Amino acid sequence: MAFLNEHYLKLKAGYLFPEIGRRVKAFCEANPEAAKRLIRCGIGDVTEPLPAAAIAAMHQAVDELAVRETFRGYGPEQGYEWLRQAIAQNDFRARGCEVADDEVFVSDGSKCDCGNILDILGDKNKIAISDPVYPVYVDTNVMAGHTGEANAAGAYAKLVYLPCRPGNGFIPEPPKRHVDVIYLCSPNNPTGAAATREQLEAWVRYALDHKSVILFDAAYEAYITEPGVPHSIYEVPGARACAIEFRSCSKNGGFTGVRCAFTVVPKTLQLSTKAGQPQALHPLWLRRMTTKFNGVSYIVQRGAEALYSPEGKAQVAALIGHYLGNAEVLRQGAKLAGLKVFGGVNAPYIWARTPKGVTSWQAFDKILNEANVVITPGSGFGSKGEGYFRISAFNSRANAEEVARRLQELHW
Amino acid sequence: MAFLNEHYLKLKAGYLFPEIGRRVKAFCEANPEAAKRLIRCGIGDVTEPLPAAAIAAMHQAVDELAVRETFRGYGPEQGYEWLRQAIAQNDFRARGCEVADDEVFVSDGSKCDCGNILDILGDKNKIAISDPVYPVYVDTNVMAGHTGEANAAGAYAKLVYLPCRPGNGFIPEPPKRHVDVIYLCSPNNPTGAAATREQLEAWVRYALDHKSVILFDAAYEAYITEPGVPHSIYEVPGARACAIEFRSCSKNGGFTGVRCAFTVVPKTLQLSTKAGQPQALHPLWLRRMTTKFNGVSYIVQRGAEALYSPEGKAQVAALIGHYLGNAEVLRQGAKLAGLKVFGGVNAPYIWARTPKGVTSWQAFDKILNEANVVITPGSGFGSKGEGYFRISAFNSRANAEEVARRLQELHW
Repeated sequence: MAFLNEHYLKLKAGYLFPEIGRRVKAFCEANPEAAKRLIRCGIGDVTEPLPAAAIAAMHQAVDELAVRETFRGYGPEQGYEWLRQAIAQNDFRARGCEVADDEVFVSDGSKCDCGNILDILGDKNKIAISDPVYPVYVDTNVMAGHTGEANAAGAYAKLVYLPCRPGNGFIPEPPKRHVDVIYLCSPNNPTGAAATREQLEAWVRYALDHKSVILFDAAYEAYITEPGVPHSIYEVPGARACAIEFRSCSKNGGFTGVRCAFTVVPKTLQLSTKAGQPQALHPLWLRRMTTKFNGVSYIVQRGAEALYSPEGKAQVAALIGHYLGNAEVLRQGAKLAGLKVFGGVNAPYIWARTPKGVTSWQAFDKILNEANVVITPGSGFGSKGEGYFRISAFNSRANAEEVARRLQELHW
Repeated sequence: MAFLNEHYLKLKAGYLFPEIGRRVKAFCEANPEAAKRLIRCGIGDVTEPLPAAAIAAMHQAVDELAVRETFRGYGPEQGYEWLRQAIAQNDFRARGCEVADDEVFVSDGSKCDCGNILDILGDKNKIAISDPVYPVYVDTNVMAGHTGEANAAGAYAKLVYLPCRPGNGFIPEPPKRHVDVIYLCSPNNPTGAAATREQLEAWVRYALDHKSVILFDAAYEAYITEPGVPHSIYEVPGARACAIEFRSCSKNGGFTGVRCAFTVVPKTLQLSTKAGQPQALHPLWLRRMTTKFNGVSYIVQRGAEALYSPEGKAQVAALIGHYLGNAEVLRQGAKLAGLKVFGGVNAPYIWARTPKGVTSWQAFDKILNEANVVITPGSGFGSKGEGYFRISAFNSRANAEEVARRLQELHW
């Protein structure tokens, strides 16, 4: 009798975004008039068209595939050299970070990479995850059997949760205890916080001392506006010996539907066998990618490459400027509405405190029913997210302004 | 100290295609004149341009992403409904196979799906794999820790190898012993053999009796020419209770560089928990895909959809006809060269017996050196592939004819 992976059965059924979808659908069916003025600031999905440079490059790539002489079949699983080179040069070496072209692995999504990275890590690691956090880190560890069951609050046994709160700027401190694998996300989804250099230095020091590995998710790097905030963990000395970095074209180039991301695995990063033998991770990830992946679409890789052209960079900067302008409008609107707000300066997310005594889901329902705006309840990101909600700045300016206005009309 | 997945260290370093690449490179460097007439019939990659219908659809999709009103961000992780519907209707229901739209999961590659499917299977299954076979089935099981070490012949402990030989038409019979998970590939890579209805019926009967699951890789389905040969395992009654089917747009639509595939997980397929509780696999795969995958590029899905339009179907048929024409040329050429040949009728691969006393790699070297043609040594696909080599029909007609001619000039 064939067995299934029953760790999946530990997963809680009510995943955040489907539950939001269910409530929004029910509201719209019950209130067809209000549904017409609904504005979605829930899921973090971009709304503006792709940069023109990417559009032109993808048209050209499609045309190449229409002609035998320029047709391309299988590409290198880890990405074309021209794209790996553009990424390593522009995102890292131009910032003084030592990253070689062949340390960049092009993929179809950061979400995929954040999950798949567990393939090459062992089963006996102690895993530390921020709370609140992007749910994929937790769920993929549950699926891989790295946790026990969830308790009533939704916290899984065996995971080490690192609380994020106003007191630490929503960036957790290294724990007193030993952990092997550490998930950090900066700029942070959902809180919009960005780690300072000192905070990242403390983590790198901890990881080197404990021979831990940091999984650094920098998908929102392009939104950093404050000088001095690191854009890559490799700006911190020592990080090449302890950190993997995940990046994406989703939130800078608007590639959420186009699908391109990348992961940096430094060749200097070693983990241990059970017998205590150090072993480089880079060849394992290379083997994983060449065996279980077949590369990103040629068309998409050409589109991603175009984001690094001079025109592409200017167009991406304009896109980011648009969303950050929305974030400022929403931040000010929420403040004027009397809410305590965080984030929105180095990230496209506003993290707002609910009024006293109001839970995240109560705030969700009230904002949906009375302002006809969809936000994301903070408790969906972990128990420490209770009492907060996230407003996404991915929208048109007119919608952002309208949401800011409606928030101020609410009576709590 | 963080641990890595040391099952990866069991993998043999000399993966087949890199070793071929190394030998071809060395040959070309040493023989620059001969290198100019090199013809590659090694890796199974398509050579002809994409169908015009797919090109047009992808241009249109790129244009939609350039405009706010038609822009698309995140799509459903499991694929857009219009594509799942086109697949279920054309590839299955039109052939009398009961497959619902939401049993089709669109992905970026069959290789990915064949590897990722292990995520939802348990760790205690007895795994049966044909020999010779597409190396990904074996390697992904090694990575997942389902095997012991490899022996000198490259066979991994704990796997059950099912020998494929002329006597069984290169399609293995169900074993006498119990196995839980069975990999079948038909039409077969590398042997070009296609399973008859009786052979598939025997496997479905076995799987139902043993409560096993069949992982049925039908990536080459479009090449079936003989009437009566099943195109899907769901043509066999009972298969919906015991089989997952993998399909691809790579070898019919020529999407090896574009990236689109799909997997069918019937809702009626149940596996067991360790406690013996039956549990449907469909929700587990849905959860896997929504958590660890973010959908195939919108542009690519529109291209795949176009393969199912009337023009798309005609263009795909022409492509397949071209490659099958090559296969016939190569098959006849190899026969006239005095080789015993199999395959090439329902598949784009010719499986040729090496002359007596000649190993697969000896044949590879001789054909490379004397005919300046790259083939794939059969032993690279497993120990039972020793004494064979694979000729790929993915090429221009002129090249196929030239290879057929050169094979006849060889003196063994």
